Amino acid sequence: MSEQNAALSWFTEQHGRAGSAFSLHVKALLHTEKTPFQSIEIYDTTDWGKLMVIDGCTMVSTRDNFLYHEMMVHPALFTHARAKRVVIIGGGDCGTLLEVLRHEEVEYVAQVEIDERVTRLAEQYFPELCASNGDPRAEFLFVDGIKYMAELEPESVDVVIVDSTDPIGPAKGLFHTTFYTSCCKALRPSGILVQQSESPLVHLDIIKMMRNAMRLSGFHAVRTLTFPQPLYPTGWWSCTMARKGADLSGFRERGAAAKRFATRYYNVDIHRAALALPEFMREAFGD
Amino acid sequence: MSEQNAALSWFTEQHGRAGSAFSLHVKALLHTEKTPFQSIEIYDTTDWGKLMVIDGCTMVSTRDNFLYHEMMVHPALFTHARAKRVVIIGGGDCGTLLEVLRHEEVEYVAQVEIDERVTRLAEQYFPELCASNGDPRAEFLFVDGIKYMAELEPESVDVVIVDSTDPIGPAKGLFHTTFYTSCCKALRPSGILVQQSESPLVHLDIIKMMRNAMRLSGFHAVRTLTFPQPLYPTGWWSCTMARKGADLSGFRERGAAAKRFATRYYNVDIHRAALALPEFMREAFGD
Repeated sequence: MSEQNAALSWFTEQHGRAGSAFSLHVKALLHTEKTPFQSIEIYDTTDWGKLMVIDGCTMVSTRDNFLYHEMMVHPALFTHARAKRVVIIGGGDCGTLLEVLRHEEVEYVAQVEIDERVTRLAEQYFPELCASNGDPRAEFLFVDGIKYMAELEPESVDVVIVDSTDPIGPAKGLFHTTFYTSCCKALRPSGILVQQSESPLVHLDIIKMMRNAMRLSGFHAVRTLTFPQPLYPTGWWSCTMARKGADLSGFRERGAAAKRFATRYYNVDIHRAALALPEFMREAFGD
Repeated sequence: MSEQNAALSWFTEQHGRAGSAFSLHVKALLHTEKTPFQSIEIYDTTDWGKLMVIDGCTMVSTRDNFLYHEMMVHPALFTHARAKRVVIIGGGDCGTLLEVLRHEEVEYVAQVEIDERVTRLAEQYFPELCASNGDPRAEFLFVDGIKYMAELEPESVDVVIVDSTDPIGPAKGLFHTTFYTSCCKALRPSGILVQQSESPLVHLDIIKMMRNAMRLSGFHAVRTLTFPQPLYPTGWWSCTMARKGADLSGFRERGAAAKRFATRYYNVDIHRAALALPEFMREAFGD
């Protein structure tokens, strides 16, 4: 660690499947540990603020996380008519929770992160993402999200947000029909599941698999949204929404236009834009 | 070169201003040369096809160039009522030219690239981008684009596409009011200038400077469009359109929907989506 602090260097993540790599210029390794679930490193970078790395993958930086967190939350919550009860699976850095709590209609959020250390380190190194952690509407549960969803009372929540790592390692089970079936059962009618769904350019097969699995698990409608995310492979990312017993053709545009909180990326035009499918995705999905 | 061919390795571009770097896994260095204007390298990659590097910057890969080339051409040509005469400044790899020539209304395209070697190497290593180079509507001029635009007959062209390298080195003069004034003069009424305008996330100052310079040079309306481009810094890129004596509020949606050529990224929804400005860009532009 002292050597890594001694000089400026680079943190590099190699994207095995994609044949590419992304690096950030780092000033110092601030923290490193091995938890029962994964290895976590925190770096200070020259231009991207703090950087959290999990199992060698760049997870969140101070500079660009707003893109991902806003897009994981606001499209789903402005599609649902009135989401009172929300579950976040993963999301230990609390950036997704912060965006959910901006919605006044939300009465309760369960933040279900398997690894408490992610949240403790976020509190220390990304305090701005944890600014609402004291909100009485938020409950922190450091348990297995798959088990949590399987045991949840049927028709008890409005929105489930799956903010997890990639479909390898601990998060693998979050991309299966068993998990989606639990989510569908736990959602009230017209409830929405939204999950990060990797890069349209290099993981299109994963997105197709997820969409098919969601449909097979009882969801009525599925839509994939895209947005920029420099920290993740190819810099272009997606989330996929699935809805129980209702379609996903529109959203509460007036509500989104009149929102009483600030965003840096999301707005009504961006919501519509994220729903636009490029030709190659349209062809792949048969839409 | 033999050593580089001996083993798999990486080509890395460090983004000085951004504190980041992007790498592609390469199998072989196929060609390297120093022209009177710049250094050019061609690599064979494991997952991205061929890669052209100019002065150390990744310019074009087989895999992802369709995003950039389609977005540099189709929004402008489906905004113009009927672009008969088009000028491309730069664009030596011929990918932009290929997309322009898909439009039947185009009667003449001048491809004005300062460095003939870029085009000769594209013919050899990116033949699919040069598939329309024999089209009788295309004229190849290997001259200085700034001088070419300054000497062009007033009100003689409909669309000018500036497909250049970054605003450092040989392309610097393409981001100045002197050049924009030449473009504005050379365009017919309602003519459109479109120029690649870097990353919204790390080059917002450059985009603002370009927009201001375009307005100061006599253009009536200016709009910035965004799109993914993995090969360029942050993976998120933009182009900026400026129009002479007319606004940029709409485009020929029916024409775009009925287009008689295939695209992989562009379609009517994507065109609309690209025009959506994220909150931070809206604030920066005062729109």
